[in-house]
Amino acid sequence: MKGLVYNGPRDVGVKEIPDARIQKPTDVLVRITTTNICGSDLHMYEGRTDMESGRVLGHENLGQVAEVGNAIDRIKVGDWVCLPFNIGCGFCRNCEQGLPNYCMTTNPAPGVAGAAYGFADMGPYDGGQAEYLRVPYGDFNCLRLPRDAPEKQTDYVMVSDIFPTGDHATELADLRAGESVVIFGAGPVGLMCAYSAILKSASMVMIVDRHPDRLRLAEKIGAIPIDDSKTSPVEQVMKLTNGRGADKGCECVGYQAHDPQGHEHPNMTMNNLIKSVRFTGGIGVVGVFVPTDPGAPDPTAQQGEIMVDWGLHWFKGQRIGSGQCPVKRYNRHLRDLIAVGKAKPSFIVSHELPLSKAPDGYRHFDARDEGWTKVVLHPQPVAA
Amino acid sequence: MKGLVYNGPRDVGVKEIPDARIQKPTDVLVRITTTNICGSDLHMYEGRTDMESGRVLGHENLGQVAEVGNAIDRIKVGDWVCLPFNIGCGFCRNCEQGLPNYCMTTNPAPGVAGAAYGFADMGPYDGGQAEYLRVPYGDFNCLRLPRDAPEKQTDYVMVSDIFPTGDHATELADLRAGESVVIFGAGPVGLMCAYSAILKSASMVMIVDRHPDRLRLAEKIGAIPIDDSKTSPVEQVMKLTNGRGADKGCECVGYQAHDPQGHEHPNMTMNNLIKSVRFTGGIGVVGVFVPTDPGAPDPTAQQGEIMVDWGLHWFKGQRIGSGQCPVKRYNRHLRDLIAVGKAKPSFIVSHELPLSKAPDGYRHFDARDEGWTKVVLHPQPVAA
Amino acid sequence: MKGLVYNGPRDVGVKEIPDARIQKPTDVLVRITTTNICGSDLHMYEGRTDMESGRVLGHENLGQVAEVGNAIDRIKVGDWVCLPFNIGCGFCRNCEQGLPNYCMTTNPAPGVAGAAYGFADMGPYDGGQAEYLRVPYGDFNCLRLPRDAPEKQTDYVMVSDIFPTGDHATELADLRAGESVVIFGAGPVGLMCAYSAILKSASMVMIVDRHPDRLRLAEKIGAIPIDDSKTSPVEQVMKLTNGRGADKGCECVGYQAHDPQGHEHPNMTMNNLIKSVRFTGGIGVVGVFVPTDPGAPDPTAQQGEIMVDWGLHWFKGQRIGSGQCPVKRYNRHLRDLIAVGKAKPSFIVSHELPLSKAPDGYRHFDARDEGWTKVVLHPQPVAA
Amino acid sequence: MKGLVYNGPRDVGVKEIPDARIQKPTDVLVRITTTNICGSDLHMYEGRTDMESGRVLGHENLGQVAEVGNAIDRIKVGDWVCLPFNIGCGFCRNCEQGLPNYCMTTNPAPGVAGAAYGFADMGPYDGGQAEYLRVPYGDFNCLRLPRDAPEKQTDYVMVSDIFPTGDHATELADLRAGESVVIFGAGPVGLMCAYSAILKSASMVMIVDRHPDRLRLAEKIGAIPIDDSKTSPVEQVMKLTNGRGADKGCECVGYQAHDPQGHEHPNMTMNNLIKSVRFTGGIGVVGVFVPTDPGAPDPTAQQGEIMVDWGLHWFKGQRIGSGQCPVKRYNRHLRDLIAVGKAKPSFIVSHELPLSKAPDGYRHFDARDEGWTKVVLHPQPVAA
Repeated sequence: MKGLVYNGPRDVGVKEIPDARIQKPTDVLVRITTTNICGSDLHMYEGRTDMESGRVLGHENLGQVAEVGNAIDRIKVGDWVCLPFNIGCGFCRNCEQGLPNYCMTTNPAPGVAGAAYGFADMGPYDGGQAEYLRVPYGDFNCLRLPRDAPEKQTDYVMVSDIFPTGDHATELADLRAGESVVIFGAGPVGLMCAYSAILKSASMVMIVDRHPDRLRLAEKIGAIPIDDSKTSPVEQVMKLTNGRGADKGCECVGYQAHDPQGHEHPNMTMNNLIKSVRFTGGIGVVGVFVPTDPGAPDPTAQQGEIMVDWGLHWFKGQRIGSGQCPVKRYNRHLRDLIAVGKAKPSFIVSHELPLSKAPDGYRHFDARDEGWTKVVLHPQPVAA
Repeated sequence: MKGLVYNGPRDVGVKEIPDARIQKPTDVLVRITTTNICGSDLHMYEGRTDMESGRVLGHENLGQVAEVGNAIDRIKVGDWVCLPFNIGCGFCRNCEQGLPNYCMTTNPAPGVAGAAYGFADMGPYDGGQAEYLRVPYGDFNCLRLPRDAPEKQTDYVMVSDIFPTGDHATELADLRAGESVVIFGAGPVGLMCAYSAILKSASMVMIVDRHPDRLRLAEKIGAIPIDDSKTSPVEQVMKLTNGRGADKGCECVGYQAHDPQGHEHPNMTMNNLIKSVRFTGGIGVVGVFVPTDPGAPDPTAQQGEIMVDWGLHWFKGQRIGSGQCPVKRYNRHLRDLIAVGKAKPSFIVSHELPLSKAPDGYRHFDARDEGWTKVVLHPQPVAA
Repeated sequence: MKGLVYNGPRDVGVKEIPDARIQKPTDVLVRITTTNICGSDLHMYEGRTDMESGRVLGHENLGQVAEVGNAIDRIKVGDWVCLPFNIGCGFCRNCEQGLPNYCMTTNPAPGVAGAAYGFADMGPYDGGQAEYLRVPYGDFNCLRLPRDAPEKQTDYVMVSDIFPTGDHATELADLRAGESVVIFGAGPVGLMCAYSAILKSASMVMIVDRHPDRLRLAEKIGAIPIDDSKTSPVEQVMKLTNGRGADKGCECVGYQAHDPQGHEHPNMTMNNLIKSVRFTGGIGVVGVFVPTDPGAPDPTAQQGEIMVDWGLHWFKGQRIGSGQCPVKRYNRHLRDLIAVGKAKPSFIVSHELPLSKAPDGYRHFDARDEGWTKVVLHPQPVAA
Repeated sequence: MKGLVYNGPRDVGVKEIPDARIQKPTDVLVRITTTNICGSDLHMYEGRTDMESGRVLGHENLGQVAEVGNAIDRIKVGDWVCLPFNIGCGFCRNCEQGLPNYCMTTNPAPGVAGAAYGFADMGPYDGGQAEYLRVPYGDFNCLRLPRDAPEKQTDYVMVSDIFPTGDHATELADLRAGESVVIFGAGPVGLMCAYSAILKSASMVMIVDRHPDRLRLAEKIGAIPIDDSKTSPVEQVMKLTNGRGADKGCECVGYQAHDPQGHEHPNMTMNNLIKSVRFTGGIGVVGVFVPTDPGAPDPTAQQGEIMVDWGLHWFKGQRIGSGQCPVKRYNRHLRDLIAVGKAKPSFIVSHELPLSKAPDGYRHFDARDEGWTKVVLHPQPVAA
């Protein structure tokens, strides 16, 4: 079959690779019709992780079930399914507490919890930017889709990662109807975060970025765009909230945060959040931070350390929740909102490409080229 | 009346000062029979805050009501009361959400929430290390005590601050029965935190310190003492938890953390917690961190910034809650446990002194002199 | 001053009554410009409570502060305020836990918690269907409104009771974005409940009633109307949810529930909820049930007892939360949604009348006359 | 193999039956060394359910793994395991939300959620009062035990049902440290509920029953026994709580509640709870209520309906949570408390019998014979 392979920094290519196949009785094999390029793929693409060359990328996947292992009870051949990027077992301590993002079974690395498809340090699993995908523990890891799945692929595929991840940021921050929220980052996750906040009736959704196409999209769905290349985002939030700060805050950028001049400051968004979120407020951090970052500009950042305004954070009595999203906690509900027409997350999609054009997609998306907000790939046609 | 006055770094004295009195119709005046020296008093004592000289210290107070303002409905003259160190109004947004620790009314400083008796940066209120104390918004801020108050003063007084604060650390960490917890710091707050964890049936309570008298007390109540002058606390926790880390963690030291050699490292305990708490675990931070610390050894610490292992924190998907304790959330329940004999927090008291000896108490407690675990002052006798 | 007085069953009149005035230093006096007739006023109007004749009705009140007691710190003369129907003290155990609906101070009846303006069994307080209203513990009980209060009176006044009450039903039921909910009753509270569910992005909001004007309003805001005079509501919910039942359910009718033929069955809505809510689902009950109901058709109902399908409830593992709404838990957030234009609860208002026409309003609203969905009274003009 | 078979009302016998065996790749086969007779077995024993004759009883099971299906990854032959009485799949909507007590996969009856071993209406699964037990979805449904499992069998086996069920009652009631609680029923579940409340530092644990042996056990662990054959339990609770009522309440009796004279009143305990729990209090109901009860004394009870003081419940603003316990939510933590010696639930065991004596055990336990508080069976020896 064909798949998109990581060859090394800024070098990916579509190649013939060994067919994905059922390896264990609990596996499900999915024919991939839609798979996205994610902002976190770019960390790997840029060589800022220890991703092994030769692996297939892609953790935002949707398709039709082609085959099931003999221990599979729920999922049937022909089902349309969306796959959470997390790979959980369903029976370890973390999975049973609703935290398959920190599954203790699926990542073979000692002392590490959590696995994903085609992801650095998240287990040996291949990604779905390919014609087929092997899904471990398929009864646990497949979300079944309704009959309109083929027509709404670009909506439902968002439920694999960025829509739940954006929503998770608001949950980690404990955002409630009527509250104000500031979101740092208007990339795909930041936009989904703003969209979630709006769906939950936040009273004011402020979002900080500097790319005009992203800020335009944010404004279109009802958020207040703040361009940090033109203004201090902290001052702007303070002004909009009568000097009190936002009730809640969300980090949707991660360790590669950089200033408008392009200089990287991995602590920039965290400290802006601590400053712009009010006393007693909550902060959700879904932008990726990493324990080791050999490509970082300075030795502390290389060890995943950042300089945090901890005194101010403590003085303000804030709460912080961090980490990857447990997609299964959200995907049924978000799927249902799409099904009834109350959510349409595909508004962020700028490009739909065949798998063969994936390298182009990576190049433009990585360059933040104007208008390339979200790239969706279609390795296979809807009709088998 | 007599009161303990802060004159400057490591200089306190008992003096004749103007009588505390009812100033507003919502005030209550309390004759103080018991008041403690707190670990956070030492930050001020050592000159590591901008505490104004001439002010009366003391925020852990208990006594008998001597007079009430004409708008007071609940509290009566003669009631025995314990005063939360937080001064709340009861009607601002934070107070009404159960967060009087961040009252928006009682601290007149612009943009700052939260007030306390005799505390730097927490409003103009005098402390209770004196014969009388003025209690603003007395109906809201007085906890009534049962008839055995005079006999159990050294137990009930702990409900003003350190017992709830220790308990709050376990709540911020979301500790549940059957879980393991590691606590950094076995000072009075750390010991109360361990005691709370034990009362709630944590399966394993590990506590890190290096003072033998404190570690002995911890062991006596059923905690596992870890001496960080002899062993790596992170390695020890990992060993005791089969390499997984503690389920939850509590910070009870604060910004003046120092290594066994006496060198200050304000980030030491936070990073040890991030390392020794498991994936998905929660961390509660009640040790004091400050936004500005002019006396700190280096320029970043002077601005309240510390170098945090943020990548590891994010990778492990931890949650962190920080800040002062909302004493009123806990004080009724803890009082009731004392009343029925199920809690006896006075086990930490090492010295009971008259007010006149307060300066001695400060000196020994500040020096961490062997055996000076907790100093209680009695400005007035029980019988009026 | 003038006020609407309850004379006896179905007999109310506007009379000259003694002026409301400041009685305690914590009181605030409000000039009432908007006050509603509530569905629960009808229980009293119909003589189905032990409301004393001679008392002034009205617990949904909004106006401008005319005078404040000398212990009032926050509220100023001239402030526009909306008053929660609950009267809390702010300092009892229930108030401090965010439950002023069960204040232990303001209701003088022994062993009873909770007070309200102009309400049977809820303390001696007069209602606001009058020119002025005395507000006890004014700093705690007044919600300040923004500058557009005069123009948006009919929106903001809903924050005194029915908008929070409807929202509370969804909170008691623990409704989350993406879930389905069935609401029994499309009176003002039921409509506000549906509106809250829609604002929080429920995936499907089903609402049961039989009055065409109410069902039309429900449909207009996006709910699915179910006419129980034409179909079995339980069967209809089961059909719409593929046989599983609604995720959550809300009771917005209360003890005077009756079938389409007009026969009263106080257990009708509870049992329909137990049947139509899914296994593990939550149910919020804000429709009023009373401990004694001398006017009820049978002796058990007279004692507030109803025959409940408890076996089915238990078998399905449901959770039920009941009782009056703690308005202060919701009113700031709902006010803010109105202020930014994201909520407009005045859509339910059918009639705005001067105080003098209040008796007409009661008559029509009590008769459920077509089109009389919600009556708003204006005792005083906006400009003083 | 040998197993205890239900032949009909009050008729059980140990017979040779077909061997339990692996039927699906996700099955695990357990050699049963310890299995209890549960109070809910008595509903079946007495013929008050539609249990089919010929089935094997027993849902409180512990033993050693004898064989595993080829899709099993976590559990190994030789592991000591305790089995939650709930049989969950691990991947349906309810299981993934932590509610395997309402699994939507394992009970084949249409529209019904939840399955158990050897239980009426809970699926076709045989019970564990036999030499071997087939455990479906073994990776999900087995709790591994530490090395001391053989010596502490009578402690660990309680984690299969009654210890978590008792604990669940306190969680449904939302009991917190320092609060008071009243428990109706001092049978095995009621005693475990009291024990859980004590482990969590409730300030006062009141327990209502009339059997002297049960009340003695309750008193021994620190609860306050209330004998309802000698006093009104509601009055007694009111007296002990200064007229306020208990903060929280737990129902551990169920639909076969009867008065001291032996007359059955299925609503007796619910109404006593509504009366004796305070305004705003929570009530957890784990005693079994059933949707249909053909053997009940009157037609309404036969349909699972009971007459509830709903008006009083609503007026007091209580919350009620009901149903079977999701054992997996609690079993790891309770196991760990046993492992470190902080919990020893075997204190309730009165008799340990071989399987052959099981019919005697049923007879005495059903008769509530003095001293027969809990019967444990040992079908197989520890050493295989």
